Amino acid sequence: MKLEKQKPTGLEMSDQTPTAHAPPREGLLRGDHSASWTRRLAARTSHMKRTAIRELLKVTADPRIISFAGGLPAPDLFPLDDIEAAFDVVLRDHGARALQYSETEGIPELRDAIAARFTRPGSRVARENVAIVSGAQQALDLLGRILLDPGDSIAVENPTYMALLSAWRPQEIIFHPVPSDEQGIQVDQLEATLPAQTKLLYLTPTFQNPQGTTLSKARRLALVELARRFGFGLVEDDPYAELRFEGDPLPRLLDLDSDLDPIGQRAPGNVIHVGTFSKVLVPGLRVGWVIAAENVIEKLIQAKQAADLHSCGLSQHLILQLIHAGVLDRHIPKLCQTYRERRDVMLTALARHFPEEVRWTRPAGGLFRFVTLPMGIDATSLLAASLERQVAFVPGEEFYLRGQGRNTFRLNFSNASPERIAEGIRRLSEALETHRAQISR
Amino acid sequence: MKLEKQKPTGLEMSDQTPTAHAPPREGLLRGDHSASWTRRLAARTSHMKRTAIRELLKVTADPRIISFAGGLPAPDLFPLDDIEAAFDVVLRDHGARALQYSETEGIPELRDAIAARFTRPGSRVARENVAIVSGAQQALDLLGRILLDPGDSIAVENPTYMALLSAWRPQEIIFHPVPSDEQGIQVDQLEATLPAQTKLLYLTPTFQNPQGTTLSKARRLALVELARRFGFGLVEDDPYAELRFEGDPLPRLLDLDSDLDPIGQRAPGNVIHVGTFSKVLVPGLRVGWVIAAENVIEKLIQAKQAADLHSCGLSQHLILQLIHAGVLDRHIPKLCQTYRERRDVMLTALARHFPEEVRWTRPAGGLFRFVTLPMGIDATSLLAASLERQVAFVPGEEFYLRGQGRNTFRLNFSNASPERIAEGIRRLSEALETHRAQISR
Repeated sequence: MKLEKQKPTGLEMSDQTPTAHAPPREGLLRGDHSASWTRRLAARTSHMKRTAIRELLKVTADPRIISFAGGLPAPDLFPLDDIEAAFDVVLRDHGARALQYSETEGIPELRDAIAARFTRPGSRVARENVAIVSGAQQALDLLGRILLDPGDSIAVENPTYMALLSAWRPQEIIFHPVPSDEQGIQVDQLEATLPAQTKLLYLTPTFQNPQGTTLSKARRLALVELARRFGFGLVEDDPYAELRFEGDPLPRLLDLDSDLDPIGQRAPGNVIHVGTFSKVLVPGLRVGWVIAAENVIEKLIQAKQAADLHSCGLSQHLILQLIHAGVLDRHIPKLCQTYRERRDVMLTALARHFPEEVRWTRPAGGLFRFVTLPMGIDATSLLAASLERQVAFVPGEEFYLRGQGRNTFRLNFSNASPERIAEGIRRLSEALETHRAQISR
Repeated sequence: MKLEKQKPTGLEMSDQTPTAHAPPREGLLRGDHSASWTRRLAARTSHMKRTAIRELLKVTADPRIISFAGGLPAPDLFPLDDIEAAFDVVLRDHGARALQYSETEGIPELRDAIAARFTRPGSRVARENVAIVSGAQQALDLLGRILLDPGDSIAVENPTYMALLSAWRPQEIIFHPVPSDEQGIQVDQLEATLPAQTKLLYLTPTFQNPQGTTLSKARRLALVELARRFGFGLVEDDPYAELRFEGDPLPRLLDLDSDLDPIGQRAPGNVIHVGTFSKVLVPGLRVGWVIAAENVIEKLIQAKQAADLHSCGLSQHLILQLIHAGVLDRHIPKLCQTYRERRDVMLTALARHFPEEVRWTRPAGGLFRFVTLPMGIDATSLLAASLERQVAFVPGEEFYLRGQGRNTFRLNFSNASPERIAEGIRRLSEALETHRAQISR
């Protein structure tokens, strides 16, 4: 006999009066299941918690709240009629195939469509370089699983996308913060500050979350060269680049890196590129992609097979049809027009209502701007005062690696109407005034 | 300066003739990206591989192949008209909400609908006990992430669902095989064979994959009691139970376990129950669920938030509408009728064509039966002979923990038409005959 009976605990209930439905059985543990499961939790779960944003989203589901908190695209712009038309085509042309089990890699036609969008003269992205995933978040999670060992040195912008931290923290890696300014991460500081064994650098070069900043072209070039020279890989998280309101697009790190290889050999090299349809079509379908060297894609597919077999087939077929019907290309300019207007309304309101010692970023696209309060004003305390006035935002501290940024917060400008944005910023400035008066007393 | 330049390697290409598109830059590593990424792969990736079934699915996509290989439901039975009608209702009633970001836990109405289906007199499953996941596979993956530490002792049926092994192997646990017979796992052997520190036992008690066998009621009762007495948890993977062709349903482990608690305290206790709509509606929407104690669900949600934010919102709304419209309850009897017919056609063909020393299981439901050849006949070699006759199946070895079962294979009977099933078994018997003649020479 190898199994050993558990010792009776104070929580054991076997001396309770038996009922007809629960006949007593000697020695059975009863009623302490919660404690049993807590004991069984894996050590890595100590690194897991709900992110503040996702939880704040529940508060902001109340329609009275003016929310600058989430990263939600404007639902009033969702192309519902186009999606309805796409559904009819998918069901007519593919029927049961769209609802059956399908390939882990993603449906071939969608991989091809994405590969085509990323193929340039002299630099081919092939189907084998593309994996379909359930949103960019799954891309980050799967990359963490296939690339990170405990103790690895991983560099990230600071502040950075908080859900990257949620995805990679359980791998027990060491994060190295890279400071950034209005031009994105400070590439010239990397050589001096990164550990020699740095494995990867993760960044959102364009319209960064949370800051809204964009890595300049000169820094992009310097970064892809530096990464090759010093042997670390780059993970380019790029959900917002197509939401550009003004100015010329900057080249992707993916492209600048492959330009370093001779024509004919150009393919995804030292950059892993992560993209999603969440911000340019709809997020609820959960379709994103990874573009990378073939052996990275191969391992990622193995991990995905074990993780969820494949992403929703209907979603993939719908997205493919929306691309084929030209909806994606027609939709992006509409998003840019609306979001630009909302960004500008917010900018005007900030300039009008906020004291001049408050600073904010001036994003040329995307969904977010970042606000810096005078030192000593705590954005989390301000949030409490702001929620009383039914306005929500995300404290910047959540995005920093090491408890910095307590005087910063992130504002989303894509989700609320212009009127509500103006009103929300007005209320927020009131909240700030009240809060400052309180702390100066 | 902390970073160190990589030493030039034989693969470095900086002495190549530069082109206008690829200006030469000294010291850049070129062309060896594949090797760089391979060096960066995490140690756990050595436990990852593509499963034979998923790869075999690609071969069997050829319509000329009669496939008994996959676990695919019959696409001709997919309720396409009902899904079309459900889509119209979802878009009309929820519109953008079904396509926006949503809660990680799953949409509340679907959690409630599942909770209601599992609530019995005196034993309540609450919304907080239910998490929506992207198919049962994601349930297994997330459970592995929150419950398994390296070195943990985990008991599984042997043979078992092979994708459970894919999901949990990278956690570097120790699997302990539990032998099974026609009545399911041999519960009376557990005490003597399981290590004292066993944390979990994973099983598919009803119409098991791959064997098609069902754990008897007496063994179910003994198992839930034993698990409580010896302090290990049970993971009940239950995708097939509603596909019962004959006989009375057996109580779930989830229910038998909660019956051990006094009325009023009954809720998911020592059993984690995993379910899916893949086999009873359609698999491509990727909607499954986990029912468990509240603190298990809480941790699972934290892990899921980092893994993919949430499952496809449109899929969840479609499934919910199919439940509300009564489609699910009307559809299951149709599936049972068709699959019973296919099972019986296969049984008749096996009895007619196969030599009497071959044995097979007699499932009362589900999708699979298991065949045992005389010792010394290798099913993998038989597969090669069989594929020449355009018939596919999965060698049983894939489902065993330790290289056993080389003389076994799994047959799916849900996917092919009765005519093709009969023809496929006939060809398979020819393949067997030829193969035996070859090895006896």
